[in-house]
Amino acid sequence: MFALEVRDHVMIAHSLQGEAFGPAQNLHGATFVVDVAFMRPSLDENDIVVDIGLAAETLKRVLAPINYRNLDELDDFRSRRSTTEVLTKWVFDRMSEEIAAGRLGDAARGMARLRVTLHESHIARASFEADLS
Amino acid sequence: MFALEVRDHVMIAHSLQGEAFGPAQNLHGATFVVDVAFMRPSLDENDIVVDIGLAAETLKRVLAPINYRNLDELDDFRSRRSTTEVLTKWVFDRMSEEIAAGRLGDAARGMARLRVTLHESHIARASFEADLS
Amino acid sequence: MFALEVRDHVMIAHSLQGEAFGPAQNLHGATFVVDVAFMRPSLDENDIVVDIGLAAETLKRVLAPINYRNLDELDDFRSRRSTTEVLTKWVFDRMSEEIAAGRLGDAARGMARLRVTLHESHIARASFEADLS
Amino acid sequence: MFALEVRDHVMIAHSLQGEAFGPAQNLHGATFVVDVAFMRPSLDENDIVVDIGLAAETLKRVLAPINYRNLDELDDFRSRRSTTEVLTKWVFDRMSEEIAAGRLGDAARGMARLRVTLHESHIARASFEADLS
Amino acid sequence: MFALEVRDHVMIAHSLQGEAFGPAQNLHGATFVVDVAFMRPSLDENDIVVDIGLAAETLKRVLAPINYRNLDELDDFRSRRSTTEVLTKWVFDRMSEEIAAGRLGDAARGMARLRVTLHESHIARASFEADLS
Amino acid sequence: MFALEVRDHVMIAHSLQGEAFGPAQNLHGATFVVDVAFMRPSLDENDIVVDIGLAAETLKRVLAPINYRNLDELDDFRSRRSTTEVLTKWVFDRMSEEIAAGRLGDAARGMARLRVTLHESHIARASFEADLS
Repeated sequence: MFALEVRDHVMIAHSLQGEAFGPAQNLHGATFVVDVAFMRPSLDENDIVVDIGLAAETLKRVLAPINYRNLDELDDFRSRRSTTEVLTKWVFDRMSEEIAAGRLGDAARGMARLRVTLHESHIARASFEADLS
Repeated sequence: MFALEVRDHVMIAHSLQGEAFGPAQNLHGATFVVDVAFMRPSLDENDIVVDIGLAAETLKRVLAPINYRNLDELDDFRSRRSTTEVLTKWVFDRMSEEIAAGRLGDAARGMARLRVTLHESHIARASFEADLS
Repeated sequence: MFALEVRDHVMIAHSLQGEAFGPAQNLHGATFVVDVAFMRPSLDENDIVVDIGLAAETLKRVLAPINYRNLDELDDFRSRRSTTEVLTKWVFDRMSEEIAAGRLGDAARGMARLRVTLHESHIARASFEADLS
Repeated sequence: MFALEVRDHVMIAHSLQGEAFGPAQNLHGATFVVDVAFMRPSLDENDIVVDIGLAAETLKRVLAPINYRNLDELDDFRSRRSTTEVLTKWVFDRMSEEIAAGRLGDAARGMARLRVTLHESHIARASFEADLS
Repeated sequence: MFALEVRDHVMIAHSLQGEAFGPAQNLHGATFVVDVAFMRPSLDENDIVVDIGLAAETLKRVLAPINYRNLDELDDFRSRRSTTEVLTKWVFDRMSEEIAAGRLGDAARGMARLRVTLHESHIARASFEADLS
Repeated sequence: MFALEVRDHVMIAHSLQGEAFGPAQNLHGATFVVDVAFMRPSLDENDIVVDIGLAAETLKRVLAPINYRNLDELDDFRSRRSTTEVLTKWVFDRMSEEIAAGRLGDAARGMARLRVTLHESHIARASFEADLS
């Protein structure tokens, strides 16, 4: 399997409700350094996994609605907490939609799998990885 | 699959017996930066893979018996060399036991898979990854 | 000059008032990975710059009042914005006080200089460095 | 599965033909930091995945024909562009041959899987991972 | 002294003439990850060293003439080799001009010092640091 | 000031005597990732700070007597503890001698300053920096 992985970041505020979260129940924040790995078994006609420029632009566009925001105020995080884990899936779902809509190019519709990793500090990170249907 | 990964480190002395190990047959040592990735197909009722505070505490407790020690003197490494590879499995087995014993919380018993990575320098690292039975 | 540098991190929310800050005028947040370098021209009687355990504990104690907090609500940041730069000085001042109060040990009172670095993402960081008076 | 991963690097020039590559159609270059992960389900009789010294030497030898070269002039990249993705497979194929030829030792013939990662900058990397046949 | 440091990168081809350069006399290339640290003794009226958005934009504009280029063809490197060291000074000089021309804002004219660092691999980097006149 | 910095590493065992060292009084060990920065105000006739190949070779030769060793058995660390700080100075002194002896080339005798950094984990490092006399 081939993979191409690109990186960007967001700076967000949020709080995590529930006793289990201890001090993280307070409004606080995080820098998430976000890696998206695009995976496919063979390369496209340009000998690449995906156009790296389009991949980077798309990731920036996907992240824009949460960047410099308080996630507690966004509809997407009213029914679920905005944990790092939930955010990996949130980015995964939006990147999948972008691929399906052809915004990473026609060849990218052949993408087999994605992995989204959010680094929240030098000692912790979360990821979500799955096949594209 | 979701994953959450936490990091800690240990500083140990050891020697590696056998001609293949060259100068590493001498008593020497290493800093191992240890990453443990907890993996499961769906999140628990708190929208997380595992309580990150418990994960970090448990990793520190698991590493305590080898931290600041000469591994040549420990019973666990009499029958097998304490290679970086063997140590990844040693940490894996102990983390699995902690999960099974409920020390990462009841929800963590649903964990599907673990990966333990030991970075021994800026140019080498080893890992062990397997399903939890 | 000898230096010893230790690392910890905080996760904070804040907003930055003033047109120059663009989208950062919104309430958002950051993970700051914090490095503190202690500097002195010669080592103490234990052949060290400072007790590394005390240094790490002190840094954690200094950071506690801002960790998992919304800085907009703290008195210390009412008269000045809580920019990354201002925070480097805030940590510097508190670490200096800890040293002067002897909380890093008697020998640490001979410390000559400090540098505090806050990494806000994989592409940006700020620092403040000065002699101790 | 156990893995052992070693790191080296190459500095190459090349150009990438095709409109999709924009400014990368110009002759330019890259430092590729190369990680090779060797994977097998159980350890050899020395309690290791592979002799780390041999692994590092072999990687250096495999990389030698492209290091400090203009890839546009090499036969291997006449029929395919020398994209980062193609290079991951190029390194993979040569490392596989070295293993099959016994140059990583007899025990290494039991290797199950390889992953080759090329980091091209702090924000992009590609990899190729597959079972060894 | 306060510092703010931002990061970008370029991918270039070049060759280094002279026996001392061994295989680097061949046309080859490099990814240079470029850090620019802006330094001043006190903050501006916005409590910052420099507008981080302008700093990043300016760095990208300064690097544009060498990005995706063969440095052997550029006039700037006809009289001097394009060693990593020479390139740190080349970036330093252009960033200084941008500051003097007011392109980082009026307040940035009070900048005291700059440091430019070019990372050429995971094991080597060069920098140039000096006061601004 | 120009700087060129190269990286290598050693794996050592040692113990640190004195109550202040707590569990580090036990025989344990460390991987030290070692950076040496060579500094001079102007470049040599090859437009470099120092021959990077010679710098790397010399660093490896300087580190050889401690690599894969128990420092408690070496004469150099009988009168002083082998703390990370003391080791930065030990490397500094040996690198200085190599420069003075002309082993980094004639031009390197014009070197003005050195900085040696030892990273002992992902959260701690020490350095020694001084002018060359």
